[in-house]
Amino acid sequence: MSTNNNLIIGLFGFGVVGKGLYDALNATPSLNAVIRKIAIKDPEKHRPIAAEHFTTEAGELLNDDSINVIVELIDDADAAFRIVKTAMQNGKAVVSANKKMIAAHFEELLHLQQKYQVPFLYEAACCASLPIVRNLEEYYDNDLLQSIRGIINGSTNYILSKMQSESLDYVPALLQAQQLGFAESNPTLDTQGYDASNKLCILLAHAFGIISKPGEVLFSGIENISRSDTRYADEKNYRIKLVAEAKKLKNGKLAAVVLPRFVDEKDDLFHVQDEFNALVTEGVFADKHFIKGKGAGALPTASAVLSDISALRYHYKYEYKKLYGTTTTELSEDFFLKVCIRADEIGLIPKAEFEFFEELHNDLSQCRLIGVIHAGKLLHSSWWKEPGISLIMVHDGIIEDIDYRKIRKRSLELAGLV
Amino acid sequence: MSTNNNLIIGLFGFGVVGKGLYDALNATPSLNAVIRKIAIKDPEKHRPIAAEHFTTEAGELLNDDSINVIVELIDDADAAFRIVKTAMQNGKAVVSANKKMIAAHFEELLHLQQKYQVPFLYEAACCASLPIVRNLEEYYDNDLLQSIRGIINGSTNYILSKMQSESLDYVPALLQAQQLGFAESNPTLDTQGYDASNKLCILLAHAFGIISKPGEVLFSGIENISRSDTRYADEKNYRIKLVAEAKKLKNGKLAAVVLPRFVDEKDDLFHVQDEFNALVTEGVFADKHFIKGKGAGALPTASAVLSDISALRYHYKYEYKKLYGTTTTELSEDFFLKVCIRADEIGLIPKAEFEFFEELHNDLSQCRLIGVIHAGKLLHSSWWKEPGISLIMVHDGIIEDIDYRKIRKRSLELAGLV
Repeated sequence: MSTNNNLIIGLFGFGVVGKGLYDALNATPSLNAVIRKIAIKDPEKHRPIAAEHFTTEAGELLNDDSINVIVELIDDADAAFRIVKTAMQNGKAVVSANKKMIAAHFEELLHLQQKYQVPFLYEAACCASLPIVRNLEEYYDNDLLQSIRGIINGSTNYILSKMQSESLDYVPALLQAQQLGFAESNPTLDTQGYDASNKLCILLAHAFGIISKPGEVLFSGIENISRSDTRYADEKNYRIKLVAEAKKLKNGKLAAVVLPRFVDEKDDLFHVQDEFNALVTEGVFADKHFIKGKGAGALPTASAVLSDISALRYHYKYEYKKLYGTTTTELSEDFFLKVCIRADEIGLIPKAEFEFFEELHNDLSQCRLIGVIHAGKLLHSSWWKEPGISLIMVHDGIIEDIDYRKIRKRSLELAGLV
Repeated sequence: MSTNNNLIIGLFGFGVVGKGLYDALNATPSLNAVIRKIAIKDPEKHRPIAAEHFTTEAGELLNDDSINVIVELIDDADAAFRIVKTAMQNGKAVVSANKKMIAAHFEELLHLQQKYQVPFLYEAACCASLPIVRNLEEYYDNDLLQSIRGIINGSTNYILSKMQSESLDYVPALLQAQQLGFAESNPTLDTQGYDASNKLCILLAHAFGIISKPGEVLFSGIENISRSDTRYADEKNYRIKLVAEAKKLKNGKLAAVVLPRFVDEKDDLFHVQDEFNALVTEGVFADKHFIKGKGAGALPTASAVLSDISALRYHYKYEYKKLYGTTTTELSEDFFLKVCIRADEIGLIPKAEFEFFEELHNDLSQCRLIGVIHAGKLLHSSWWKEPGISLIMVHDGIIEDIDYRKIRKRSLELAGLV
């Protein structure tokens, strides 16, 4: 494949994004990219273009020497990995939007890229149309990034936005999101935080050179967020957002979490509503950058795929500069989080696990505690994900050092002793 | 210069950005870029590093074969152009932050790039640290961009923000900006809109493939904005921002303006305060993207320069894809603007120039009109830039078609006839 060569594409999947890509490619003839064949699972399904475009045989695409680019847009992460692997073995460039597959197989995929020296691009896997992976890779490559922080799942943001703006319970807000196509019929990948933590895993590689496995990073979703939580947020003029954050600690290691969080009005993420995604990067030189856009949808996702296809014209590859660079960093679980716990009864909260509490509210129906807890203790326990409990990070979130003298004074004050 | 070669830099200018770059390079040894020599004007000035780094002879840098990159960070646009031209003739890659020089010499600079086939990068010339030029060039290259709209001058945004948030008149707000280093001692390049229109000129080339000359685009600054205007904005819950906008019209041509503008709370630009810059892109596929960050300052600007230097390692060049592509577009002055005019006396406003008026307010001290006027009429007149008059675009701004039937009805209503 030489520069400005025609790109002959084999496309896997013709769902909303696949169809979006088909339309977007037709609207940009200047790209000189054509779809040779589309592999699909069910040949009987009605489709808006002629049957001759389709095949159910993956080999027809993977073994066709005239096809130089495989675009993988299917749901099944295991099947997707087999397709991507074979395509790379056969010397084809690959574009994928499958964050689950990428997060689960990151190390093997790095190995395949090195071994076969083919580009593997996946801008659409993080925040759909937003140019995040490429900017982390190319633009922030030399800046000393201190943190990234963002709303990287559109479904949960839509649900949380509606819970607050329309005073809905979780279930009706989820139903509304499903009706509008902002949540899947099986929404757990989104609502339990898996999707956001898969995306964070990809971001960690490009922003900080860290390869992590799903489950290594502390995460949860939004299924336990209740109307009581959103009412509490409304009172304080907060919004609840599912926020992914990674932050350099003073010791050079990295704290990373995906948790629901109270966000105040001064925070750019406060204004990111509905299905929108956003990311705040903070670097030593560039300071804070904030980028916002649609994090889902056929055409926004297709636009990121299109941009990857376009980059293949000049053999663009991710260099993983931070990963293969001279200075490496690693994940830490040795930091503290300030969290707000709401529980149906106080007995559900293992109070001894906390370093200290800042606030306690208890009434007939429930209790709410704001306290500081060690991240490692949360990572290795699950009481806080049980029904009847919600855990929401307080906006100033990640804490490195605790000044126990101050706390002792504060605790005594709380207890009415000083 | 081969890939991952050491970059040996000749630096012109050691003001705040030059010094910022020096510090940033020292903090990123992984870049393998060293500053060989720094050319300055005044050898007597006290500088924080040893005198042996400096020279007053431009030739010492431009004729040194071991230097493969010239970084130009001086104020004087004419001298900057001579340096850049000679550097390119001598086969050196060039990085510049000089928007005035680039806008004034765009065509010659394109010609030099083609003739000598050397990279000429200038990310820092648009919104300092924000990765805008590169994203327009690389990421939005195939999306069908419909518009760009942004706050691209930090000085004027700081002044306007303070005028509203601290109820200041223009002059004290300007003084405050100067004291904090957000405005130059001679601020007219910023406050009269030249800087923003130079930057828009650069953005037009990368976003839409249009080469324009300064003055071809309708622009003004903020010098005539008064407390009366900001009070009016406060009443309506608007903020006044100096907004640069370019928008595709239905006929395929492009409307472009840099004007003060009332921005309402639903607009992302409303939340861009003080010295921050931001840009909203709108594409057919990706929909709206919003990016915000510091648009000025030593380290943010140096970070963009650093990013350009880094891109030189792999011979990155702007391809000007939209400019050299198959479909070209051109600037139009055939559109309408809805504007709010405030004048000390109504006689200062040439009412016959307007298509129609929507609102009229007249009191003892001044009058205020909201009306629609043809852009060409503003471009070729200057009454609206005279003392005692301000012109502020109304937030829904650029209008393509006017429905004169509706207007007639509205005008009659205003006149109390129906």
